Amino acid sequence: MKKEIKVRVPATVANLVSGFDVLGMAICEPFDEIFLRKCTTPGIKITHTDNFGLPTEANQNVAGVSLLAMTQAIGNMQGGWEIEMHKHIKPGSGLGSSAASAAGTVFAANILLGSPFTLQQLVPFAMEGEKLASGVPHADNIAPCLFGGITLIRPDGDSEIIQLTSPDIFVVVLHPQIELKTADARNVMPKEISIKDAVRQFGNVGALVAGICTNSPALMAKGMNDLVAEPYRKKFIPFFDEMKHAALSAGAIGGGISGSGPSVFMICEDRQVAVTVEIAMHKKFESSKIPFHTYLTRIQTNGIEIF
Amino acid sequence: MKKEIKVRVPATVANLVSGFDVLGMAICEPFDEIFLRKCTTPGIKITHTDNFGLPTEANQNVAGVSLLAMTQAIGNMQGGWEIEMHKHIKPGSGLGSSAASAAGTVFAANILLGSPFTLQQLVPFAMEGEKLASGVPHADNIAPCLFGGITLIRPDGDSEIIQLTSPDIFVVVLHPQIELKTADARNVMPKEISIKDAVRQFGNVGALVAGICTNSPALMAKGMNDLVAEPYRKKFIPFFDEMKHAALSAGAIGGGISGSGPSVFMICEDRQVAVTVEIAMHKKFESSKIPFHTYLTRIQTNGIEIF
Repeated sequence: MKKEIKVRVPATVANLVSGFDVLGMAICEPFDEIFLRKCTTPGIKITHTDNFGLPTEANQNVAGVSLLAMTQAIGNMQGGWEIEMHKHIKPGSGLGSSAASAAGTVFAANILLGSPFTLQQLVPFAMEGEKLASGVPHADNIAPCLFGGITLIRPDGDSEIIQLTSPDIFVVVLHPQIELKTADARNVMPKEISIKDAVRQFGNVGALVAGICTNSPALMAKGMNDLVAEPYRKKFIPFFDEMKHAALSAGAIGGGISGSGPSVFMICEDRQVAVTVEIAMHKKFESSKIPFHTYLTRIQTNGIEIF
Repeated sequence: MKKEIKVRVPATVANLVSGFDVLGMAICEPFDEIFLRKCTTPGIKITHTDNFGLPTEANQNVAGVSLLAMTQAIGNMQGGWEIEMHKHIKPGSGLGSSAASAAGTVFAANILLGSPFTLQQLVPFAMEGEKLASGVPHADNIAPCLFGGITLIRPDGDSEIIQLTSPDIFVVVLHPQIELKTADARNVMPKEISIKDAVRQFGNVGALVAGICTNSPALMAKGMNDLVAEPYRKKFIPFFDEMKHAALSAGAIGGGISGSGPSVFMICEDRQVAVTVEIAMHKKFESSKIPFHTYLTRIQTNGIEIF
């Protein structure tokens, strides 16, 4: 059996605007690389080649706790693990950095152990990492990270991941280098909404999912309006309204906050429009004087890849 | 130009469980028949061949107010109308009886006038009838009645009707002959829901729409759970839980209250299962001693038909 493995783990955009806490999408860039080794020494040793300053104690580290949860489920496992993280998805970017660490590690470990678990069965282990990172064990980044493409989760049910068709679109992401804690982004939201607004969002989720399933960016566009989180969270993101407006004016079909932010994503029907949208967002945001990255990327349909 | 026309107008199931106020489905049975004549005498003359006791004054009648709204929009119209209603969809059944009267009449009138309006443009006229019937101008029965198949409306937007693919399913309907006012069914609902429950319903709406769009009854089934209306409205319907349980046990994939009730509908993957489901619901409900009808039908994909 193989003793070591290297995986490439995609960044993910959770929520997709109106699909708050239920929809997520894997994107080709940025991505993390994780090397995992099965070794004879017990315990989990974690090293980072990046300078994000993430903890290296297994029980303090997102990848560590996920791997611990998985090995505890197996029970009676000999030896230990070495994890070498090459992270490119910045923690706190809203691009599923913790999900990538968690999902990538359990995915890799599962392969080295001879795949005792299905992808679906890996979800709860990876969610332990999310719980450590944000206090809430959510799967809306884990799911697209593991399965690729666009995924739907149903909190009202068995948490089974539903894979949707991936429409043929381009994604522009602008990541402002500001810190925004998921917990703060959650606390700013009201605990209740009116039935009237809920119904508006039912219609939007329906249109978005119908657009995804029928590869219709125009229909997706209709559904990309969020009444639940964006109105409360956008104030944390400098120039959010200006960027969104500029992107839509430049031809983007829709977009909003990626996960709980601060990254902002916009969806475009073709590459030429996406280039224009990227420039438009760039122009708006640079006046903030805050450092930022942009990505022009596509939907990543394979999930975690071994290389 | 033709002076008279006869149309067949389908019954409709609004909400489709989790798609509260946004999804609707036309079914082949029951249906109304409407004869409409353009005549030289001004005014709107309404006659009924049924014994439902509906008003015949145009401004008190659902078909009448819809037709008035339409002719007012045209302005300066010569002559008047004779409407002969042969209703088979019982008013107050929860099967879109008022929507059928309203949509059927404006559809027929539009044809006789040389189709000055698109189907989409007929929606607001027909909604005047819904407003008269229930106090609320809603389109979730109007839309599938006019367009056929399964439709999605987005209250958060331009009210444009989105037609979804029609999956290959059978529909069993049980209509208890009790009176249940839409207004009462609305008043019993809370005005707000928790974000947590809203998110559960986002996941359900997403799964239901994805199931519809990909012709997957199994995926539709996952999404057919409603947290918004059914928990509050089901008490108005005798033996609701028992019927639903019996139908699911007999192989139905899902179902619930049709519109605001009292009709109950269940969806089945094949005819043989649908027959078993119909018998199971029949058995449960007959102990109530309340008269009832059942229908075993399919999705009506054509909308209003001229014959």
